[in-house]
Amino acid sequence: MSNAKSPTACVIIIGNEILSGRTQDINLNYIAVKLGAVGIPVREARVIPDVPETIMATVNECRAKYTYVFTTGGIGPTHDDITSECVSAAFGLPHEVHPEALAIMETYYASVGSTVNAARLRMATMPRGAKLIYNTVNSIPSFSIENVYVLAGIPRIMQGMLDGVIPSLEHGKPVVSQSVGCLLREGDLAAALEAIQKQFPDLDIGSYPAVTGDMKGVVLVAKGTDEEAVARAAEEIAKMIVSLGDTPQRM
Amino acid sequence: MSNAKSPTACVIIIGNEILSGRTQDINLNYIAVKLGAVGIPVREARVIPDVPETIMATVNECRAKYTYVFTTGGIGPTHDDITSECVSAAFGLPHEVHPEALAIMETYYASVGSTVNAARLRMATMPRGAKLIYNTVNSIPSFSIENVYVLAGIPRIMQGMLDGVIPSLEHGKPVVSQSVGCLLREGDLAAALEAIQKQFPDLDIGSYPAVTGDMKGVVLVAKGTDEEAVARAAEEIAKMIVSLGDTPQRM
Repeated sequence: MSNAKSPTACVIIIGNEILSGRTQDINLNYIAVKLGAVGIPVREARVIPDVPETIMATVNECRAKYTYVFTTGGIGPTHDDITSECVSAAFGLPHEVHPEALAIMETYYASVGSTVNAARLRMATMPRGAKLIYNTVNSIPSFSIENVYVLAGIPRIMQGMLDGVIPSLEHGKPVVSQSVGCLLREGDLAAALEAIQKQFPDLDIGSYPAVTGDMKGVVLVAKGTDEEAVARAAEEIAKMIVSLGDTPQRM
Repeated sequence: MSNAKSPTACVIIIGNEILSGRTQDINLNYIAVKLGAVGIPVREARVIPDVPETIMATVNECRAKYTYVFTTGGIGPTHDDITSECVSAAFGLPHEVHPEALAIMETYYASVGSTVNAARLRMATMPRGAKLIYNTVNSIPSFSIENVYVLAGIPRIMQGMLDGVIPSLEHGKPVVSQSVGCLLREGDLAAALEAIQKQFPDLDIGSYPAVTGDMKGVVLVAKGTDEEAVARAAEEIAKMIVSLGDTPQRM
C-alpha cells in the first residue's frame, strides 16, 4: 500500500462554517483527486475552527509529518480571516506586506474602480519569504511557505490556485484503480475478497456497498501504483464474483 | 464564543475512499447540523485512513479532548472494516461478540434468507461493555463505548443511528444565527464589521463571500447561543450595510 518514497499530503480545512454545518466542504475531494493523479496521496485531513492556537498547532504538527500541507479558507480581508497571520506565527516568521502581492492587488482594485484599503492590505501580508500562489479568478494571490500551501476557501478560487501549484510539486507514482460491481452482499464475499487482498499485499482492495436502492449491490475496488497488479487483482475479483454465482460488472 | 459548560464533539471520518477522492463525504455536515441544533458544537473533524495505529491514536487523542467522539465508516463485514477492533484496542478492552447484537443479526439475516457467517459475526464483535446503537435501515447495530460513538459510513444508515443516539446525549444551549446579505465587497465592509464583532465579543460574526456569479455579494452571519444578542448584532449589520450605501437582505 505505501511507497516509502512517495510524497504525501495533508489538507487542513479552516473554517467555523464547515464545522457548524453551514457550508458543505467540497475542497477536500477536489484536492484529493488532483493530487492523487500526480502520485501525491492525501493521507489525512483536518477540519478546524478559526482559533489561532488551533491553526498554529495543527499547521506545525502536519508540516512535520507530511511532504505537503494544503490549507483552505480564512484568507479574505475580514476580521475572521486569520489563516495567513497564524501561518506566519506557526513558522515564527515576520508577517509583512509582500511587494509583488501588493502590486498585483493595486492593479486589480484599480481595474474595478476601488483601492487597496487597510482591510485589503491584510491580504497582501504574508510570512517573510513567502512565494506567491496566483489566483486566476480575481487576481488576489495567496502564498506558500516551505511545504505549506495556503489556498482560498471559495472552491472556484481554490481550484485555480491548486491547478497552478501542482506542476511545481514533486510528483510520485499515481495510484490507479479498477472497480468491479456485483449484486452480492458484502458478508457473502468477505472471505474470498480477503484472500485476494492477501494475494496482492501491495494493493488496497476495498469494498463499498451501494448507498441507494435495496443496498444489495457492492463495488469492489483494487487500487495501487502497480497498474499491472491492479489489473490482475480486478481479474481475480471478477472470477470470485462468478464463483459466487453472480455476474461481475466492470465499471 | 465558547461556553465553558457546553458539551463538545469531534467527528473522525475513517476511510481511504474519502482521502482518495473516490467518495465525497456528506456525513460531517449532517452530524454538525444535528448536534449543533441540540447545543453540541462540533469543534474538530479528522479524516483518516484505514490504518490501525492511526485509528487508535486518533480515537484516544480525541476522546480525551471532547465530550463526545463520533466515528463514521469501517464497520462492515469485509477485511477493510477495522474500526470496531481498533476502538476496542484503543480502550484496551476485550473485543468480543455482543449477545444482543448477534441475536438481532440472526433474526435479520434469517428474514432475508441468509445466515450470520464468520464475516458477519465480525459486525457483532465489539468492546466489552459496549452499548448498542440501533440501525433503522437494515437492523445491523453498531455501538458506543464511554464517550465514543461508532457510526456507519453509509449516510442513510449513519443518519438513523445518529438520530437515535441524540436524545441520550447531554444537550447544551443551541447556537442560533441570523444572516444578512448584501452586494458590497468584503474589503469595503471589513472595518465596520470588525467593530460589530468587538461590540458582541460573545458572538461569532462571520463573512462569507458569494461563491457564484460575479463574486460581489457577501453573506454576513451573527451566531451564538444568546438569541437576543444575535438579533441585535444582525440589526447592527443591517444598519452598517445601509450606512455603506447598500440594501441589507435578510435571509
